This record gives sequence, structure tokens and C-alpha cells, in this order.
Amino acid sequence: MNKYDVVIIGGSAAGVTAGITARRHYPNKSVLVIRAEEKVMIPCGIPYIYGTVGSPDKNIVPDAVLEKNKIDLVIDVAVDIDRDKRIVKTASGKEVEYDKLILTTGSKPIRPPIEGLDKKNVFEITKEVPNLSALLETVNSSKDLVIIGGGFIGVEFADECKKGRNINVTIVEMQPTCLSGAFDEYAGVAVEKILKERDINVITKDSVKALLGDEKVQTVKLGSGKEIKADTVILAIGAKANIDLAQKIGLEIGSTNSIQVDKHMLTSDKNIFACGDCAETLYFFSGKPAPLKLASIATMHARIAGANLFGLRRENQGSIGVYSTVVNETCFAAAGLTHAAAEKAGYEVVVGEATAPNRHPGGMPGMQEMTVHLICEKGTGKILGGQVYGAKSGGELINVISACISGNMTAEQVAVFQLGTHPALTASPIAYQLVNAAEMAAGKMRQ
Amino acid sequence: MNKYDVVIIGGSAAGVTAGITARRHYPNKSVLVIRAEEKVMIPCGIPYIYGTVGSPDKNIVPDAVLEKNKIDLVIDVAVDIDRDKRIVKTASGKEVEYDKLILTTGSKPIRPPIEGLDKKNVFEITKEVPNLSALLETVNSSKDLVIIGGGFIGVEFADECKKGRNINVTIVEMQPTCLSGAFDEYAGVAVEKILKERDINVITKDSVKALLGDEKVQTVKLGSGKEIKADTVILAIGAKANIDLAQKIGLEIGSTNSIQVDKHMLTSDKNIFACGDCAETLYFFSGKPAPLKLASIATMHARIAGANLFGLRRENQGSIGVYSTVVNETCFAAAGLTHAAAEKAGYEVVVGEATAPNRHPGGMPGMQEMTVHLICEKGTGKILGGQVYGAKSGGELINVISACISGNMTAEQVAVFQLGTHPALTASPIAYQLVNAAEMAAGKMRQ
Repeated sequence: MNKYDVVIIGGSAAGVTAGITARRHYPNKSVLVIRAEEKVMIPCGIPYIYGTVGSPDKNIVPDAVLEKNKIDLVIDVAVDIDRDKRIVKTASGKEVEYDKLILTTGSKPIRPPIEGLDKKNVFEITKEVPNLSALLETVNSSKDLVIIGGGFIGVEFADECKKGRNINVTIVEMQPTCLSGAFDEYAGVAVEKILKERDINVITKDSVKALLGDEKVQTVKLGSGKEIKADTVILAIGAKANIDLAQKIGLEIGSTNSIQVDKHMLTSDKNIFACGDCAETLYFFSGKPAPLKLASIATMHARIAGANLFGLRRENQGSIGVYSTVVNETCFAAAGLTHAAAEKAGYEVVVGEATAPNRHPGGMPGMQEMTVHLICEKGTGKILGGQVYGAKSGGELINVISACISGNMTAEQVAVFQLGTHPALTASPIAYQLVNAAEMAAGKMRQ
Repeated sequence: MNKYDVVIIGGSAAGVTAGITARRHYPNKSVLVIRAEEKVMIPCGIPYIYGTVGSPDKNIVPDAVLEKNKIDLVIDVAVDIDRDKRIVKTASGKEVEYDKLILTTGSKPIRPPIEGLDKKNVFEITKEVPNLSALLETVNSSKDLVIIGGGFIGVEFADECKKGRNINVTIVEMQPTCLSGAFDEYAGVAVEKILKERDINVITKDSVKALLGDEKVQTVKLGSGKEIKADTVILAIGAKANIDLAQKIGLEIGSTNSIQVDKHMLTSDKNIFACGDCAETLYFFSGKPAPLKLASIATMHARIAGANLFGLRRENQGSIGVYSTVVNETCFAAAGLTHAAAEKAGYEVVVGEATAPNRHPGGMPGMQEMTVHLICEKGTGKILGGQVYGAKSGGELINVISACISGNMTAEQVAVFQLGTHPALTASPIAYQLVNAAEMAAGKMRQ
């Protein structure tokens, strides 16, 4: 029987990063990744298969990163674990002994209680290539695409599927606006405006009741009674932790139906870590379990778990939740709490807002407006969250805001932030959006 | 005689920002800006007049920002100050009474001890439009341009003057590499490579001894004895504080020949603040006087001075120094101490380095490699500095590093940084350069 110091079950963002981190921290340990998929999809890249990138083959996490880090790979499905003997059993009948085990079993799409989900041409977004390839072929000959869910996946799929195709695309979202989990309403309104300019239909405050048709879906019936023509339906209403194996072997499960872990990413078994979408995540501010499922959180988990394998070196400080996306060349990015979520959590909130071009002078090429919203606690001035929309440099500016949040900075401190600026790269130092948004928030607190 | 609650002398980045900040913090106070220039140049935009932007008229800080903030403006030169009576006297004979005064008199180019500097077609880079327009006209008919100094201004002028012109451009730099104040040697080598690919000559480790010719410069004679043909020469060897007025009125001058200020940006006169290039800046780490002159530092100063006018609200934490530039579409950005500067300051240093594409998958449009160097103190792991080169998102990524430095973060903390990533905006969460550079530095510390 094979024996490895470290066995990792799952080979997506969390699994790969856990392996690399294990290798960096424990250079002499043997590491094995067991994964089900022949090829691993870059998870956040999946929507781009349908437009910009063009095929699943061009959206692969290369296995070279494993080889380079001397991590062995077995393509197989882990079906059981003998925790006493520390043995993983696979579908093909293999057994592998481990000293430490990391579970990165990921997530699976939430299957909502909608009638007719089993009809042909109805797709869930999984990470399996055959499913994604079948969807690509279907979308290519589709005339009427309905996407259920207006979160990041739904919006990105709508934007991408519209590219280069003569196709009607409709998003159906229950909330009043799209992207409402990460952004306040104004951003959802802005996203909708952009989508509509691209001739994408957005239906909000409505639910999907049934998918009608014979074998193939033909119509989507909404809660409001409205019916929409559809030859393809994509379910994009979120994901839930894949805890099948963890439950089977009796690990503790947390209140969000994810594998319970401590600050070191250790499960209830002292030789088993869990990280990524399958593991429970706590909010940075409240310490309460959070429904956040992001590749960036998964890799953060993995950098903790991998470092802690043979000695507890790192603690999870809780998840801030940092998002970004691009809709028709406009960036939307968010970190931490929205205004709405902060108030719901009991904070008294002030919001500072600033807009400026991302170049100076405005005649520099690539000029685009960028707006920053900074959500602060009244009184302390603590930065609770931030949102950016406009120029694509927002993709990194949101990480500046994330650094300010994790450094427990206040609006007063951000107002004198030590920024770097350049005509071809950023706003002017006078107009720099983050600093001015902080100054506006600080001003409201003095009133 | 006019009386204002706040009078600001100087109307560039520091003056404008001090005015806006005064308005925000003290809505009912009257504010006047006295400035010498009819039009204010965006300081960092000046090199781009010579290529990308095309004329000084397109590189102006709009006066609308003053009007919008109810700040009065007088175009005049402040020639004297009666500190007892709190009166500013101008060249045109006007007198203005003030309650609080802010000096933002800026800097002037350093005039090196080179023979022949007064010949025709030799230009200093000042912020005055007539001088900049004359230079533009000269460059437009120039065949052989020599730039003395390979810092940011020198490199940016070389890059821009080469655009759309059939002109020989040569940079002469005394140090072993260009940009050596802000970057370690590898970056200077990379910049030189890019400049040479653009057919720009770079001469390092050599000085300029004399500018030869009759009325007009014809040849630049170097310390090595080499002679270079030149019909235009640009001096770009740095700037010194303009302290003429401060000296005249007897304010204390600091060891860097700048106006001495305390943490509140107050000068030795309790009614006079100073900020920007004319004011002394201290290093963030050592607290020692620093030769840093940056628009971003000037605006940070101004946000402190403006807030402190009628009550001390903010303290200067010292300057990190955050730089960025673009050379032929490649971004170079730096924050804090270089490896060399950190060692010179007495730190034992480890450097973590990581390179990855700024997109995932690599097939996403706009893909460019980006490298991060993170300079950390051995032992504590404290982030002392960082450098980024490659993709233009480095312009904001350097601000993430600045936030990590000002938050006193360590390599261990940055290794589990809460990043946001997106296929069209950043590296993948597995490969995110900042986090991996931190992990590499942390790894070296464990050895």
C-alpha cells in the first residue's frame, strides 16, 4: 500500500494551493493529490469559456504546477476513509495511507425546488469538462437562453453568452437587483443598466416556478405568472459545500452545512484538515459562520492548512469576502460588508463616496471613471467594507481596501493613506478616489 | 485690506488639496489661494506633454475644483509675510490678512555644477507653461536630445520624446542603473533593456562635465571624456525645496534644506503650516529626514495641514514613498525601502519574489506577466518595501503593498492576505504574486 505524509483529496484551487503550501513549509514530506477530474477547470474562468476564452481546453489549471512542486497525482475518486488506520480508499479500489489528510472536496450547485429541472437543455454549472462542453454546444445553437440567478455567475454567463451570438438572454433574479449579495443597490442598478444596453433582459423580484416543455425545455414559468421562451436554461443560484465524504466518515458539520474547522483549519479529527468551499468560513467582523464560497477564500484557507500540517503556524482571521467582476468592460468590485449588511449586523454606518477619472490628465489613454464607496462604522470610523466600480484597476484597488479592512484601519487613517499615483495608471493624487471617499466618510462623522 | 481665515501660498497639488481639505473640515472658513501661475500643470503629467498628451494645455489642474469648494483665487506672487500682523504681501502690492497660513511653495530644479548650462536649448523641467511650451517647440525640431538624469522624470521624458519623432535620445545617469532611488538594480536593468529596445541610448556610471557649443549647445562632454552630439539638453536630476520665502521670514529650516515642520505640518510659527515639496518629510521607518519629493506625499501633507488648521486632528506618520511609472507599456512601481536601502539602514533583509500572468487563464485579453518583490526584515518578517513590474495593474497593486507597510503587516500576514481575484483583472488566486512573494520571504526566514 502507498503511504504519503500528506494526502489531499480534491485538486481545484484549494487542493493545489494546499499542496504547494505543504511543499514550501515541509520540503521533505511526500504529498499526494487525489482528484476525480481528468482536467481541472479554473473555477472563476468558467463563464469565460462561453465567450472570451472559447473552450474548456483553454481554461485549465496546468498540472505542471504539481510536478514542479513534487506533488504526486492520482486521478480517482476518494470514496471512504478509515480514520483509525488513516487510509483513503478510492473508487478504483486503491488504498493510500496518510499521516495528515486535507479535504478540499469543494461545492456543488444548489438545486432549487423548481419543477422540470430534469428536462433536456437545463444545465447546472459544475466544474466537469463534459458538462461544460455540452453546455457550450447547446448555447452555440441556442436562440433563447434563460439564466436563473443574477449573482456573479449569472451576470458573467449572460455577458459572455451574448458575445458573438445572435441569442436572446434573460436573467431571472429574486432580489430587487443583481449582485445583491456583494453590492449595495446602486451597483445592482448600474449592472442592470449595462446589461440592458447589451440587449440582455433582466427580470428582478421574480422567481422561477417551473420549466415547461416535453423532453426539452420550451418555456420558463415565473412566480409572477409570466412565461419566457427558452431553449436553454442555466441554473446559477449558488453552491453548497460538498460534505458527502466528510459526513460518511463522521466529521463534525457546522451550521452552514460545511465541514466544521477551527482557526487552524483542523476538522474534528486532529489528522484531517479541510479547506475551500467544503469548509466552514467565519466572517472577519462577527466571527459568525458565513455562506461565502470564493476561490480566493479557498486559497487563503489552503495557505493556512498547508502551513499547519506538522505544527500550528497560522490562524484564520475570518473571511472579509473580496469580489470583482467585469460587465461589458466595466469593473465591479467589493470587499467586506455592504451598507445594507452592516446595518443589518447592527452597525451605525456612514458611507463616503468619491468619483474621479482613473488617469490624469483625463486625456491619457484608457481613461475611465471610477467610483469608490467606503462603508465605515460611525464613531470609531472603522472601515467595514468598500465597493468600486468603473475602471479595471478596481480589480486591485479592491485589494487596497481589503488590506485597509484587515489592518483595522479607520476612515481618518485612510484619508491620509500613502498612495502612489501615475498619469497612465491611476487617478491624480488630488482626486484619488479611495482617499477622498474616506475623507467624505470622516466628514460625515464630524457632523 | 482683504482678510481670509486661511491663506494658501501656492496652487499645485499641495495647495489645491490643502484648500479642499480646509473646506471639508472647516465649512464656514474663508479660504484664499495665492499662486504665481496663470495655469497649473499636473506635475506628474508634464513628461506626457511631449508625447501621449501633446500640449501643456491638455495637462492642466482645472480651477473648477477651487470654485466648487468656494476657494478664492488670486494670481500673484507672494513676496513677503508680516508674521506679527499676519499679512501676506504680493508682488503687485496687494496685502491680505490671514488667520492661518499654509505655505506650499513647492520645489525648483537642482542646477548641477556643469559648465555651459546657460546655453540655448538647455532646459530645466519647471512647472511654468511658457518654459514647457518652448521645450516642446525645441524638441519638435530636435535631432539629438540628451537627458541628464535617469530618474523617473528622465526616463519618462526619454520614452515620451521618442514617440512619433525621428530623434536620437540619450540618457546620462551617474548611478549604475536608472531609477536607482526607488528600485533595486534588477529593475534598473529591466528599464534599460526596454529603453534600448526603443532605440533610446542609456549611458550609466558617467557624469556630465560640460555642455559645449557657441550660443547653442552642440555637444555634451561626459566625465569619461566621451562626447555626445546634442541640439537639446534636458536637466532631470531632481528638485530642491523652494524655501526662499520661508527663509526671508525667518522660519526654521530642516536638515534637508526644507521648511521644518512637526507631525501636524506646523512650522516654527504656530500660525503657519507648510506642506508639499517645500516641507521637510520624514521616513516612515526611521523618522529621519527624507529627500522624497512626490505629488502623492504633497497631497498627504496637505490633507494633514488642512485638517489641523483650527484644531490638531491629524498626525503625519512619516512617508513610505510610493512610486509608479510606465515605460513602453511596462509598469514599474515601488513602495518603501529597496533591498539596498534597507540593508544600508541596518536591517537584515529577506526578499520574496513571485511572477505570474495578471490574468487567468492566460488566454484572457490583456495578459501580461507581473513580478512582485517583497522586502522584509528577517526575524520579525515586517514588510519594509515592495516592487512591482510588468502589468499596469501594478499601479494599484503597489498601493496594496503600501497599505501592508502602513499597517505594519508581516510576510506571514501577507501570505494569508484576503485577496480578490478575477480572470479579466488579476492573477489567479493560486498564483497571486503579492501573496506568493510573501510566502517565499516567509519560507526564507524559516531556513
